[in-house]
Amino acid sequence: MEINLFSDTVTKPTPDMLQFMFKAKVGDDVFKQDPTVNELEETLADLFGKEAALFFPSGTMANQVAIKINTQPGDELICDKWAHVFLYEGGGAAFNSGVSCHLLDGTRGMITAEQVAAAINDPENIHLAKTSLVCIENTTNKGGGACYDFEELVKIKEICQQNNLKYHLDGARLWNALVAKKQHPKAYGELFDTISVCLSKGLGAPVGSVLIGSKEAIKKAMRVRKLFGGGMRQSGYLAAAGMYALQHHISRLEEDHKKAKDIAQLLTRMPWTDNVEPVETNIVIFTVKAPITPTQLMQKLKEKNIYISDMGQGKLRFVTHLDYKQVMHDYVLEAIERITF
Amino acid sequence: MEINLFSDTVTKPTPDMLQFMFKAKVGDDVFKQDPTVNELEETLADLFGKEAALFFPSGTMANQVAIKINTQPGDELICDKWAHVFLYEGGGAAFNSGVSCHLLDGTRGMITAEQVAAAINDPENIHLAKTSLVCIENTTNKGGGACYDFEELVKIKEICQQNNLKYHLDGARLWNALVAKKQHPKAYGELFDTISVCLSKGLGAPVGSVLIGSKEAIKKAMRVRKLFGGGMRQSGYLAAAGMYALQHHISRLEEDHKKAKDIAQLLTRMPWTDNVEPVETNIVIFTVKAPITPTQLMQKLKEKNIYISDMGQGKLRFVTHLDYKQVMHDYVLEAIERITF
Amino acid sequence: MEINLFSDTVTKPTPDMLQFMFKAKVGDDVFKQDPTVNELEETLADLFGKEAALFFPSGTMANQVAIKINTQPGDELICDKWAHVFLYEGGGAAFNSGVSCHLLDGTRGMITAEQVAAAINDPENIHLAKTSLVCIENTTNKGGGACYDFEELVKIKEICQQNNLKYHLDGARLWNALVAKKQHPKAYGELFDTISVCLSKGLGAPVGSVLIGSKEAIKKAMRVRKLFGGGMRQSGYLAAAGMYALQHHISRLEEDHKKAKDIAQLLTRMPWTDNVEPVETNIVIFTVKAPITPTQLMQKLKEKNIYISDMGQGKLRFVTHLDYKQVMHDYVLEAIERITF
Amino acid sequence: MEINLFSDTVTKPTPDMLQFMFKAKVGDDVFKQDPTVNELEETLADLFGKEAALFFPSGTMANQVAIKINTQPGDELICDKWAHVFLYEGGGAAFNSGVSCHLLDGTRGMITAEQVAAAINDPENIHLAKTSLVCIENTTNKGGGACYDFEELVKIKEICQQNNLKYHLDGARLWNALVAKKQHPKAYGELFDTISVCLSKGLGAPVGSVLIGSKEAIKKAMRVRKLFGGGMRQSGYLAAAGMYALQHHISRLEEDHKKAKDIAQLLTRMPWTDNVEPVETNIVIFTVKAPITPTQLMQKLKEKNIYISDMGQGKLRFVTHLDYKQVMHDYVLEAIERITF
Repeated sequence: MEINLFSDTVTKPTPDMLQFMFKAKVGDDVFKQDPTVNELEETLADLFGKEAALFFPSGTMANQVAIKINTQPGDELICDKWAHVFLYEGGGAAFNSGVSCHLLDGTRGMITAEQVAAAINDPENIHLAKTSLVCIENTTNKGGGACYDFEELVKIKEICQQNNLKYHLDGARLWNALVAKKQHPKAYGELFDTISVCLSKGLGAPVGSVLIGSKEAIKKAMRVRKLFGGGMRQSGYLAAAGMYALQHHISRLEEDHKKAKDIAQLLTRMPWTDNVEPVETNIVIFTVKAPITPTQLMQKLKEKNIYISDMGQGKLRFVTHLDYKQVMHDYVLEAIERITF
Repeated sequence: MEINLFSDTVTKPTPDMLQFMFKAKVGDDVFKQDPTVNELEETLADLFGKEAALFFPSGTMANQVAIKINTQPGDELICDKWAHVFLYEGGGAAFNSGVSCHLLDGTRGMITAEQVAAAINDPENIHLAKTSLVCIENTTNKGGGACYDFEELVKIKEICQQNNLKYHLDGARLWNALVAKKQHPKAYGELFDTISVCLSKGLGAPVGSVLIGSKEAIKKAMRVRKLFGGGMRQSGYLAAAGMYALQHHISRLEEDHKKAKDIAQLLTRMPWTDNVEPVETNIVIFTVKAPITPTQLMQKLKEKNIYISDMGQGKLRFVTHLDYKQVMHDYVLEAIERITF
Repeated sequence: MEINLFSDTVTKPTPDMLQFMFKAKVGDDVFKQDPTVNELEETLADLFGKEAALFFPSGTMANQVAIKINTQPGDELICDKWAHVFLYEGGGAAFNSGVSCHLLDGTRGMITAEQVAAAINDPENIHLAKTSLVCIENTTNKGGGACYDFEELVKIKEICQQNNLKYHLDGARLWNALVAKKQHPKAYGELFDTISVCLSKGLGAPVGSVLIGSKEAIKKAMRVRKLFGGGMRQSGYLAAAGMYALQHHISRLEEDHKKAKDIAQLLTRMPWTDNVEPVETNIVIFTVKAPITPTQLMQKLKEKNIYISDMGQGKLRFVTHLDYKQVMHDYVLEAIERITF
Repeated sequence: MEINLFSDTVTKPTPDMLQFMFKAKVGDDVFKQDPTVNELEETLADLFGKEAALFFPSGTMANQVAIKINTQPGDELICDKWAHVFLYEGGGAAFNSGVSCHLLDGTRGMITAEQVAAAINDPENIHLAKTSLVCIENTTNKGGGACYDFEELVKIKEICQQNNLKYHLDGARLWNALVAKKQHPKAYGELFDTISVCLSKGLGAPVGSVLIGSKEAIKKAMRVRKLFGGGMRQSGYLAAAGMYALQHHISRLEEDHKKAKDIAQLLTRMPWTDNVEPVETNIVIFTVKAPITPTQLMQKLKEKNIYISDMGQGKLRFVTHLDYKQVMHDYVLEAIERITF
C-alpha cells in the first residue's frame, strides 16, 4: 500500500462520486448547453453571492483568465513572493497577459494591507508598470496552508478601492480555510472581484476549477477561456463530480486538518526535526536538523511506502486528503515515530 | 425527439463507452501519472508513427499550442481563408502566439502548393513578417468536409522543406478523411511536424483532442499546455472515452458519410435548393434559392424538430454523426422531401 | 549623380531646414521638457483640431501604438489587403497587440463602407475575434498613392459608430492627399479617433512621425511609447525639422505630383509598358510587357543612375520627392524615352 | 541659472558636438544606408570586440530588444530588485517579451554568482518559468552608481554557461564604470552576449543607445527594432553626436565622479544628513535625518535653483554630468554648506 501525502491533487473519486458522475446529464458546454455544468456554475455563484461562474479544466487556467480579465498588458499585479500565480503557473502572468508580478515579502504566504499600500506604483509615472490587481491566496500553499485573518483581507480591499485596483482570490484551497475558520463563502464573495475555487484538491473531484464573479467579468472570462482552448464539450461528467463534492466533501475537511495537526504534533517531538510550522489546515511544512538532509528523511519514509514532497530550501511537506484514511494515518504516525538517524 | 444536425460536437457517449470510462484507471496527469491518458497518448503516437502525443481539453488548445511551438512572435502562418485556426479560434494565433495569418484563397478550404510557394515572405526583408508555418485542415470544416488530394499535401511539404517552414495538420475531422480516402494515419505522420486529432466530434468521446509530434515538439507542448492551464488531474476518464472511440467508432464513420450523401442527393432534387456542394464526408453545405431565405428553411426544419446550422453568407450546413441514427435519417429524408415554399 | 526614386523616405534636410534644426531649443522630452517637441505636438494637434499629439521615431511606431491603444489582445482590425499596417510593419499588430488583421479586397488599397460593414464579426460569438478597429491608409502606398473619396471615409465612420469601432488613419502620406484634394486637416481630425502623420517622407524631415488624438488617447500612447522604448531625450532637433517642414514643404508637394504625372504620361506612351496605374499624387506604379521583365527595366535605369523599386508581382514603382529636382526630372524623362528593348 | 542635478539625461550637446552633428553624412538607415549610423555601429562593435551593433532611439528599447532576442515567451530573467529593466521600463519585459522577472535582493543593485545560481529554476519542471537570461546593470542607477567587481561578473558568466543562460549588460552608465575602474570595453565584450550602452547620459549626446552583440543577435535585433517601430530614417545626425561623444566625452567622466565625491564628502559632514552611500561614479544617494523630510531639503535646494531627485523611501539623489560646470559646482557646495534646519 502506497501512502501518497505528496499533494491533495492525487485523490481519486469515491465509488459514490463515480456513480454520480456517470449518471450526469450532459450537453455541448461550448454552446452552454450542458445542464450539469450550468448547474454547477449557478450553484457556486449562489454560494458566493456573485452573479456568475465559469467551469475550467484547471485552477491554473481559472487564475490565468482572472489575471487577464482584471489587467491590461504592461500592468503589474501585487502578490506574495510565494504566490502560486507567480511561482507555479509557469510564468503565465507575463506569457498570457503581459503582466509583471510585484512580489511582497509576506508571512507564510500572506501579505498585509500596509505592504500592499506601499507597493502601488504612481499611476502617472509612465516609467513604472501600472498597478492594477492584487492577488490573494487562501489558504496559502507554499505558506503551509495558512489562513488569512479576514480583517486583513477587508483592509486590503479598502486599499484596492482607494487605488482602483481589482482584487482576485486564488481559492485553490479556500474550502479548507472556510472550514478551519468557520467562515461563509458569501463573506469572500462580497470582498473579491473574482474568486477561483478548486474541485479537485481537498474536494476530491478528478478535474476542474470554477471562476466566480460578476456577469461582466464572467462574460469576458468566457472569451479568454475560448482563446486558451479551455472550452470543453460534454464536460458535465466532470462538473457532476464537482456537484457531488460540494454536497459531501466539504465538512469532512476537518478530518484532514486533524490528521495534519497530529502529524505536526508528532514531528515536533521528534529529535530529528528542526522547525515545524504551525498547522491550520491540511498542510504540514517542516525542516530537519543538519546534518540530516531532506533527501535522507524522504528515503526513510519511502522505505515505508510513504511519499511526501520536497519544497526546496530544506523544507518538506505533508498534505492530508480524502484518500488518506484513518488506517493509513495510524500507520504513518507509527512509522514517523520509529524513524531514527 | 430533437434531431440535432447542427454539428458532430453534440454527440454523447454510448452506454458502452460510458461503462468503459467508468472503469478507467486514473492518476494525476499533471505529473504524467494517469495510466489511461498515457496509454491514449502512446496509442495515438504509434498509430501515426510519431514519437509522442499529448492530451488536451479541446481541439482549439491543441491547435493553438501547435501554432505556439512552431512559430516565434512576429511570424506569419499560411492557411486557407476559411481555416478554423484563423476563423473560429477567437483570434488565438495573434493572442497566444503573436502570429499573423496570411490567408490564401483556396478551394473549399483547401490550398495548393503553388499558392503556398507564392505566399512566402522574403526572410531577409525585415518589413515583412517571417513566414514559418503552414496549417492544413483536413477535412475542411467551412469547406464542407472536403478531403485533400494527398499528392498536393506532399507537394506542400516539399515547399515547406525548401523554405524551412513547419507543417501542421488541424485534424479535427481527420478520421473522416482517413475513412473516406482509405488512407493510413502513418502517411500523415510522415508528412506533418504536428497533427491535432479530435476525439469528440465524429468519434463521439465527450471531451478531448490529442496533439501528435516529435518528442521535442511534445516536450515544448507540455510547457505551453501548462501555461494555458490545460494540464488536468485525473483526466483518465476522458482519455478512456477516447480509447474506446479509437477501437469502436472509426470504421463506422462510413455510415455518417453515406447519410450525408443521401441528404445531399435529396437536396439536389429539391426545387428550393440552389447549390449543393459535393459531399465527401459527413458535412453537407448548400444554399437555397432566393427569395427563400436560410432562416425560412431553418424554421421549417425546426418545426419538424430538425436543427441545422447557418454558416453565414447564405450557406446552410448539415453534419451527420454517431447520435444520428437510421430511424432519424429516414425521418429527416422524408421531412426534407415534404418541404415546400 | 545618383537619382533615387526608390521612395520619398530617402530625402535629406535642405540647408535651411538644417540651420533651423541646429538652432532648436531642446530639453528632456521623456519628462516633456523639450520645448520644440512640445511646440510641434501642439501645432499638429491644432492643425487637425484635436486635443493632443505625440512625437515618434517612426511612422511604424505611431501606427503600432495607435493599434495598441485602440484594441484589446484577441481583437481584430479591418484594413485593406495592401495596408502598410498589415504588410510592412513586420507582423506588428499580432506581435505588439495580439491583434489579427481582417483583410479586405479593396481597390488600389482603398476599402468601402459596404465592405467594412460586411466584415464585422458578431461580438456575441466567442469563436470569432472581436472586431474593434478600422485602419485607413491615405494616400495608399502599395495602391499607388491613390486618394480616398472623402464621402466614403464619412460613410465608414458611420459604420464605426454604429458598431462601436475605433477609426485610425495611417497618414504616412496624408499631406499628399490634402494637397491633391485641396482638403483641410480638420476634416480628417473630425472623422478619426487617431491619425498618424509622417514628417520624413514628402515633407523631407530626417526622422519622425506624430500621432494625433484625444487627450485620453495620447495619454495612453505615451505609456505604450515608453514600453516600446520610443521615448527620446533631446529630440527637439528632430522636431525642429518637422516644424520647418510644416511651414515650408507642404504646398510644394504639388511639384512632386506634377512630376509623377509627367512620368506616368510618358510611360503610357512607351511601347514596353503594359499598364500604368492612374496617378493622383507622387507615386507611379506600372508593369512592363512580357517578355520584358521588371529586372531588365530596372537594370536599364540603373545604367543611367536611376533607381526605382520593385513592388513584387511584376509591379514597379517611381516615387517623386523633395530631393528630386527639375534638372533630374528632365534627365529622367529623357532617359525613359530612350529606353528600348 | 538653474542647476539641474536631477539626472545626467538632461545634458544638451556642446557647440562643438552640435557642429559635428550637422555636418554628418546621412542616408536612410532603415535600409542601412546611413553612413554615420553605420560608422557608429562599427566603432562600438570594434571597441567591445564584438561582431555587430545596432543604434536605438533609447536605452529602454535597446534593453527591451535584448530581452526579446535572448528569451522565449514564458521564460524568466534574473536581475537585481532595483534593476532598471524591471523597475523603470514600464513593465516592458512582460509586455514586449512575455517574460517574468525573478528579482534578487542584491547589494546596491549588484547581485552575486551565488545568488544567481540559487535562483535558477529546474528546467524540467513545467510548473516553473524557464530561466533563460541574467541581466546586469553597471553602474547601477538606483544603487547609487555602484560598480561591479569584475571578478563577480566572471563568476556569474560561469553560472550562465553551466546553465545555458544568456547574459545581458545594461550599460546605460557603463562608461562611468570603465573610467572609474580603469577597465577596457573588450573585457565586457568577452563576457556578455549583449551589451547596451547609452550615448545620451554621461556622454552628452541628445538621443541614442547602441546594442552590441554577435552578428546573429544583431540580425534578430534588427527585426525586433522594426517591430517596435525603432527603425529611423536619416538618424545619422544623432549617430554623429554619439561619434563625437565617444571621442571627446569619455575620459572627462572623471570630473563628474570627482564632483560627486565632493558633494558626498560635504553631505557626510552636514548635521542634517543621515546616511550617505559610498560614491564610486557620478551618483550620490543619501537620506536626511528625521524629522527633516526629503521634501523639505529639496525645497531649500530649489530656493537656490538647485534641482535633485527623490528616489522614494526617503532617498535623495544628486547626479553630476557634462553640463554641471565647475562654477556651478562651487556654488552648489557653498549652497549645501549653508543649509540649516
